[in-house]
Amino acid sequence: MQQYFVNGRAPQGMFQISDKDTAKHMFSVMRLQAGDQIVLVFDDGIKRLARVVDSQSQSVEIIEELTDNVELPISVTIAMGFPKGDKLEFVAQKATELGMSALWAFPADWSVVKWDGKKLAKKAEKLEKIAQGAAEQSKRNRIPAVRLFEKKSDFLAQLAGFDQIILAYEEAAKEGEQANLVKILSGLEIGQSVLVIVGPEGGVSPEEVAAFEGAGAVKTGLGPRILRAETAPLYALSTISYATELLR
Amino acid sequence: MQQYFVNGRAPQGMFQISDKDTAKHMFSVMRLQAGDQIVLVFDDGIKRLARVVDSQSQSVEIIEELTDNVELPISVTIAMGFPKGDKLEFVAQKATELGMSALWAFPADWSVVKWDGKKLAKKAEKLEKIAQGAAEQSKRNRIPAVRLFEKKSDFLAQLAGFDQIILAYEEAAKEGEQANLVKILSGLEIGQSVLVIVGPEGGVSPEEVAAFEGAGAVKTGLGPRILRAETAPLYALSTISYATELLR
Repeated sequence: MQQYFVNGRAPQGMFQISDKDTAKHMFSVMRLQAGDQIVLVFDDGIKRLARVVDSQSQSVEIIEELTDNVELPISVTIAMGFPKGDKLEFVAQKATELGMSALWAFPADWSVVKWDGKKLAKKAEKLEKIAQGAAEQSKRNRIPAVRLFEKKSDFLAQLAGFDQIILAYEEAAKEGEQANLVKILSGLEIGQSVLVIVGPEGGVSPEEVAAFEGAGAVKTGLGPRILRAETAPLYALSTISYATELLR
Repeated sequence: MQQYFVNGRAPQGMFQISDKDTAKHMFSVMRLQAGDQIVLVFDDGIKRLARVVDSQSQSVEIIEELTDNVELPISVTIAMGFPKGDKLEFVAQKATELGMSALWAFPADWSVVKWDGKKLAKKAEKLEKIAQGAAEQSKRNRIPAVRLFEKKSDFLAQLAGFDQIILAYEEAAKEGEQANLVKILSGLEIGQSVLVIVGPEGGVSPEEVAAFEGAGAVKTGLGPRILRAETAPLYALSTISYATELLR
């Protein structure tokens, strides 16, 4: 069944789908008719079964709340050093499917691209759309929040808010460091927040490693193979899912 | 350090890099000079430290064998129903980074694309190149083998050769099936072979489910979220790595 995210609180009784993109997808692309059922997710993250009342006026009504919740029990924020090309777009889609709570990016010392405020606003808008589409397709209860930092200092100021910080560190894989990920994931408690920091293609600079470690980050190997920047978040999220959703 | 795969057995003494693409990358792109070191991997999968003897004649010599082995302790073959667009290319790259042993694809009942023998040969060549590049970048000891089946019956005939067959099954995620993956991965023994079957975008048909189950496949949920066809292999490989490389 098709799922859509709708801004705001769930209304009582009949109401119109006001978001133009959503209405277009429902009534022009999917050609939903009176009586057709859909799942709507409002700001509270609760899925609600709803039905189309009238396709002409694009009005629907809620039938009942659903108990179905597929969010990770741990809140996982992925933070990438600005990568080249469309790697952030790739991560926005794939990491949303894999349960990411938020996608952040920051100007790392070794980021090749330089993005100004205008470019970042445009990029964020694009990433939000991708995350919403992926969240709908993977039947998430939440759309991951997107935040692109223009200054690294603003990113660093956020680090204190996390219970655990994993620094995906290529050198760790090369040196055979393989114990930290299990140690961290085994110790996670439901409701905790994890930040996974991934460098840009060139990796993180020694100064950044020091700054992240100073804020509590743990240099962590993600298995023995060298992963590309955009693959590391997918490994991290998959293993967090396995350790906190399947093993427990 | 740059790593290259070289066909054949490791020669004694000085020898020329005969593969044109490899020679071009070494001497034109990377501009390696006499004395520069590289890692070469021959058919035996052993990494060998080597040095350039003369860049003009493109000749090198082996210094020593390296003990470094980053292959998964389990051989994992990913088999996808022919998917649309460049999804196989995507999986060839990402699943190679994540340790896949072989990439197979077959004409599934609900595959939208129809590929004939000529198209398949061209596609296989492209996928092999992508897998080789990803294997070099992620410092693998082996290049995943690529095999595209023109007939599903030929694919089905191969199923008996695996120790475990995981059928990534979207309906399992919807129904909340979450125990099978842990059961399968916990029971894997070093050296065993696993086949992960993933349907095309539309999923696997009931007839296929029956045929795969008849050959020993287990319908398995890959976490509670609905993953796209090309994301499922990445989740499977990451969790196999976690269960067999990191947890043990």
